[in-house]
Amino acid sequence: MTADSDDDRSVQISCPLPVTQYANVLVAHGGGGRLMHDLLRKVFLPAFANDLLGQGHDATVFGVADATRLAFTTDSYVVRPLFFPGGDIGRLAVYGTVNDLAMAGARPLYLSAGFILEEGLAIESLWRIVQSMASAAALCGVQIVTGDTKVVDRGKGDGVFINTSGVGVVEHQLQIGPRSVREGDVVITNGDIGRHGIAILAVREGLEFETTIESDLMPLARQVLALLEAGIEVHCLRDMTRGGMASALNEIAESARVAVTVEERLIPCRDDVRAACEILGFDPLHVANEGRFLAFVPAAQADLALSVLAREMSDSVPAIVGRVTGSGEAGVVLKTILGPNRVLDMLSGEQLPRIC
Amino acid sequence: MTADSDDDRSVQISCPLPVTQYANVLVAHGGGGRLMHDLLRKVFLPAFANDLLGQGHDATVFGVADATRLAFTTDSYVVRPLFFPGGDIGRLAVYGTVNDLAMAGARPLYLSAGFILEEGLAIESLWRIVQSMASAAALCGVQIVTGDTKVVDRGKGDGVFINTSGVGVVEHQLQIGPRSVREGDVVITNGDIGRHGIAILAVREGLEFETTIESDLMPLARQVLALLEAGIEVHCLRDMTRGGMASALNEIAESARVAVTVEERLIPCRDDVRAACEILGFDPLHVANEGRFLAFVPAAQADLALSVLAREMSDSVPAIVGRVTGSGEAGVVLKTILGPNRVLDMLSGEQLPRIC
Repeated sequence: MTADSDDDRSVQISCPLPVTQYANVLVAHGGGGRLMHDLLRKVFLPAFANDLLGQGHDATVFGVADATRLAFTTDSYVVRPLFFPGGDIGRLAVYGTVNDLAMAGARPLYLSAGFILEEGLAIESLWRIVQSMASAAALCGVQIVTGDTKVVDRGKGDGVFINTSGVGVVEHQLQIGPRSVREGDVVITNGDIGRHGIAILAVREGLEFETTIESDLMPLARQVLALLEAGIEVHCLRDMTRGGMASALNEIAESARVAVTVEERLIPCRDDVRAACEILGFDPLHVANEGRFLAFVPAAQADLALSVLAREMSDSVPAIVGRVTGSGEAGVVLKTILGPNRVLDMLSGEQLPRIC
Repeated sequence: MTADSDDDRSVQISCPLPVTQYANVLVAHGGGGRLMHDLLRKVFLPAFANDLLGQGHDATVFGVADATRLAFTTDSYVVRPLFFPGGDIGRLAVYGTVNDLAMAGARPLYLSAGFILEEGLAIESLWRIVQSMASAAALCGVQIVTGDTKVVDRGKGDGVFINTSGVGVVEHQLQIGPRSVREGDVVITNGDIGRHGIAILAVREGLEFETTIESDLMPLARQVLALLEAGIEVHCLRDMTRGGMASALNEIAESARVAVTVEERLIPCRDDVRAACEILGFDPLHVANEGRFLAFVPAAQADLALSVLAREMSDSVPAIVGRVTGSGEAGVVLKTILGPNRVLDMLSGEQLPRIC
């Protein structure tokens, strides 16, 4: 695709047929022969075009002469349905991995994309997903530089699964991670919780609420880099995906061996999400998000961090939700609105499968 | 896992029960809660233990102060069956990605591992696959430093799919890739072709040959680094996976816009593989390999390259199979044993699905 690819993406809402000679993915599209190369040339390569991908080789080589530390991460995406209010599996696959790099305080640079296609998937669906990935990558300033496509027989997959791995550069000197968490740290969320999980569930189960709840899916690298550029001594970051805020807090508390106390009244959650959770018997603290993260920062910098994040958030307001109240022993306590404190644990199992 | 992990692997042929409280993967094992963390702690983390993975964060941070160029690659593995003569999906997922890094002339350093598990997969099967990945990684000198696990409902996957992405360091100044191929270059294979595809097919279809044909699956980084250390000016490398030697030759010929001529009589192929191909109506040139690659090298260094590769190959002999006979127009010609030259094309579609 040439320089006008951005225009193409914004204008065309359906696949310019015939993209390929077949309307659906065949097993042969994964066979390494002419059909696979046709799919690559007509669907993937035009959308993701860049010089590094254009090397056309088994691995992509890039320079790192200016870097001293890199971050590396991977995630597979199996969300159902493939298209949901506020996003799709392609956008999720780009933002999700960009966000994991951001959680290490890294500037995302390069992504890989590995597709596992189920025989019979509509080429048009694949095309839409790929276009969505391309525009998401452009928005994040990352390039998809290497990829792979496999096809599995009908009934052995579910439309499309996508793995993205990411490489980013760490441009600061901080050690961002659970080990840097200290007693007294303030815990901040960049916005309201629970939208992604409820949006997926609503569309999957055909639930209708008064308003359409859209996923909170968004890229987080800009927010994190803004915190770092503002001089915030970020101790730890964690996105609140599967398992929601409760899992993120518990993971960090256990890795850091600290006690964290969060206050229910401080945790932002939209009324429609809260109402949906009540109907469904869910706790918003366990519901997955795809554009929300926790930042552990020194108390003295909490207000500055809030104001930096507020500048980057258009549809939600960041909030201080708690503090690190002890060290040596791991645990998360929730000060409830109505009554006494209670231990906030991870769920044992699964609230809602195939959320990401 | 502690220092005796290698011993553990060689002695135990079955999962030390109870590894987890469940014999089979549940959807909840992918939910981000206690069950998922239990699976990580008991199956994945002990097998892959290293300091970088031990960071326990969304992305793994590593130093690159000494590097100027890195290589990055990805592959998803969907091979069926999961265990086959000469390997399994775990070993394949490590060697396959190590090999893609090697094809860029890179020294493989770090892998990611993304698992898509189907509900109902035996935990023992997963455990065996993970052990196999760990020993394969140790053999290649790479570390699995970041990972992800998703679970899909029964009937929406096929046991386990694995994505591995890899990062390696490029320690030489060569530009290894199709664009460096020149007229006069000699084309070398590091060994006999066709074993992997026939091994998979035989076990899948219950075919019995006089001998058990084992996959040629092997890591290729040592061979490539040995070529570079010997001062071979390697122009291009390509492993002969899906689509076999024919696809690899055509991909390079098309990217480099060169004509390549290979001689059938020079192409090593074991008699049992050749016989199996004749029975099945396959051309060995189209059959997938997982431990075989093509090297394009200057004619003056071909003999040295052969002798370097021969030192690294225990069960096969490298061979010169052809030459780059022209430039400007892409094409691959096969000088047949019996008769005239013929164009050697890629297959249109699929000879054998789910081979890797």
